[in-house]
Amino acid sequence: MAFRMPKLTKTIVPMMDRVLVQRIKPQEKTASGILIPEKAQETLNEGYVIAVGKGSVTKEGKVIPLELKEGDKVLLPPYGGSTVKVDSEEFLLFRDSEILAKVL
Amino acid sequence: MAFRMPKLTKTIVPMMDRVLVQRIKPQEKTASGILIPEKAQETLNEGYVIAVGKGSVTKEGKVIPLELKEGDKVLLPPYGGSTVKVDSEEFLLFRDSEILAKVL
Amino acid sequence: MAFRMPKLTKTIVPMMDRVLVQRIKPQEKTASGILIPEKAQETLNEGYVIAVGKGSVTKEGKVIPLELKEGDKVLLPPYGGSTVKVDSEEFLLFRDSEILAKVL
Amino acid sequence: MAFRMPKLTKTIVPMMDRVLVQRIKPQEKTASGILIPEKAQETLNEGYVIAVGKGSVTKEGKVIPLELKEGDKVLLPPYGGSTVKVDSEEFLLFRDSEILAKVL
Amino acid sequence: MAFRMPKLTKTIVPMMDRVLVQRIKPQEKTASGILIPEKAQETLNEGYVIAVGKGSVTKEGKVIPLELKEGDKVLLPPYGGSTVKVDSEEFLLFRDSEILAKVL
Amino acid sequence: MAFRMPKLTKTIVPMMDRVLVQRIKPQEKTASGILIPEKAQETLNEGYVIAVGKGSVTKEGKVIPLELKEGDKVLLPPYGGSTVKVDSEEFLLFRDSEILAKVL
Amino acid sequence: MAFRMPKLTKTIVPMMDRVLVQRIKPQEKTASGILIPEKAQETLNEGYVIAVGKGSVTKEGKVIPLELKEGDKVLLPPYGGSTVKVDSEEFLLFRDSEILAKVL
Repeated sequence: MAFRMPKLTKTIVPMMDRVLVQRIKPQEKTASGILIPEKAQETLNEGYVIAVGKGSVTKEGKVIPLELKEGDKVLLPPYGGSTVKVDSEEFLLFRDSEILAKVL
Repeated sequence: MAFRMPKLTKTIVPMMDRVLVQRIKPQEKTASGILIPEKAQETLNEGYVIAVGKGSVTKEGKVIPLELKEGDKVLLPPYGGSTVKVDSEEFLLFRDSEILAKVL
Repeated sequence: MAFRMPKLTKTIVPMMDRVLVQRIKPQEKTASGILIPEKAQETLNEGYVIAVGKGSVTKEGKVIPLELKEGDKVLLPPYGGSTVKVDSEEFLLFRDSEILAKVL
Repeated sequence: MAFRMPKLTKTIVPMMDRVLVQRIKPQEKTASGILIPEKAQETLNEGYVIAVGKGSVTKEGKVIPLELKEGDKVLLPPYGGSTVKVDSEEFLLFRDSEILAKVL
Repeated sequence: MAFRMPKLTKTIVPMMDRVLVQRIKPQEKTASGILIPEKAQETLNEGYVIAVGKGSVTKEGKVIPLELKEGDKVLLPPYGGSTVKVDSEEFLLFRDSEILAKVL
Repeated sequence: MAFRMPKLTKTIVPMMDRVLVQRIKPQEKTASGILIPEKAQETLNEGYVIAVGKGSVTKEGKVIPLELKEGDKVLLPPYGGSTVKVDSEEFLLFRDSEILAKVL
Repeated sequence: MAFRMPKLTKTIVPMMDRVLVQRIKPQEKTASGILIPEKAQETLNEGYVIAVGKGSVTKEGKVIPLELKEGDKVLLPPYGGSTVKVDSEEFLLFRDSEILAKVL
């Protein structure tokens, strides 16, 4: 499944060490095109990084850049994150350190 | 929806790393002017920064300026913040780091 | 409503980074002089700073002076603070950083 | 009400940044000498500092002396502190930073 | 029991100080080939490290490399860790410091 | 009541900043030799330091020696401490900073 | 009771500042050889250190070696520690700082 960066009418700039993530939606059809009933669809803990903050600032005023960048595919933790709605699509904001892993 | 900075009879200066935010009110009418019943109005997690503190002070006496400034449109976390009433309008005080993202 | 600094028989010197605050009492009469029943009186989250501590001491022995000073009008957090009674008047002791904002 | 330092058969040396405090007992008689029933006696949040520790030691081995000294009259927090009995009198041990204010 | 590194269709790169671990499955047959009923199978707290992050970054920007490396056999804590599914196999993500011990 | 250091068959060396304390047992007889029933015996929060650790080690590798030493009479906090049995006598292990005060 | 280091088929290397401990089993027979019923056997909070980690690493990359070493007899805290099974014998993993005391 190729990822298309969503075209939002607004630019979201996460604060500090936060990343904006869009969870990958579960498949609604099988490979052969048969609809999968909603209950049988698997919840996926994968997502794409849509935008990243510029990093948190230390007490010495130094900015620590994030390990993640726009477009990264990531494994999301089962809990946590703040849900936000932009253009009626759902997104999640996590702190960089809450993301479990990158998927290459 | 254009934002008009509220004209308050008092100046509120947030302490340290706090920001004063006004939540954007949900639309009460459709584009065509039909009233939306209160229950059908969506709660919005967006707001405008009305005023910012001068930053928290480190143990070395250094002031860390805020990432946000007056007029910024922001995404608010679903919980947290202290509600205050000024001139019978409701405002929220958050710490800078609690704000999820800026909206450009 | 002009603020008159209370004349206490004792001098209260808050410890470290604490401030002594007197909450502004809700109006008991309307502008035209009619008594407002106690239940209809609004609880106000505003107060005046009566006295401030000299600041907390860092581990290096440095004193961090407070951002607030005697006479400042402030917005109080909805929770927290220790209530103390001096000359049968009620006061609150907050840490400097708990105060939400100054009102100018 | 003048304070008389209690004459204890033992010397109590509070550890680190602790202070030994004796709560001021509520008045048992009115000015005119009439006994006040125990229930009507007000609990007082004032006390006298009986002894102070030499201060807590930082990780660098530096001792931070206390802001309080023997004989200081203080406002006590409504909760906290450890009750100890010496010569069948009740005392309280607080950390220096828990004391709300000095009373002059 | 020899360990075969699982051949995943995706490469998982744990974030910061996290390690991707696969729990060793309990034996389903006895040495002589008799099936062990599922309830009688022992839950094992051993696993193999499949992938490691590059280490957490200190506030000074220094990377602290992990004590563990790919292929290490480890003792897992009874609680904690985030379960993720890759290619319908179950894996666990732990922080390096949560792993109890290496098994040589 | 004079204190006799207990003669234990084992030497207990508290780890880091811990101290081994023996609580002073309540009096079982009055001064005139009459037995006090167990319920009427007062629980005492005083004890003697039997052994001390060599101090906790800072992140820089520096050892911070304890404020207490063997033989010190101390006031114990009402809660906390770990009970251990040595030679069927009961002892308590506290961290140095949990001890409330020394008694001279 | 002399301690015999258990001969395990695997070498367990505790991570960081952890120690592998084997709790001393309560006596099952009296000195004269009579069996003690299991309920009457005393739970012992003593154990032997079987293996130690190489120490935790500070943010500056410095390793802090442990105060304990293999073979040390120790007093265990009443709670905490992770139970692991090796060669069907039960062991405990504690952080160095959780161990209460050494027994000489």
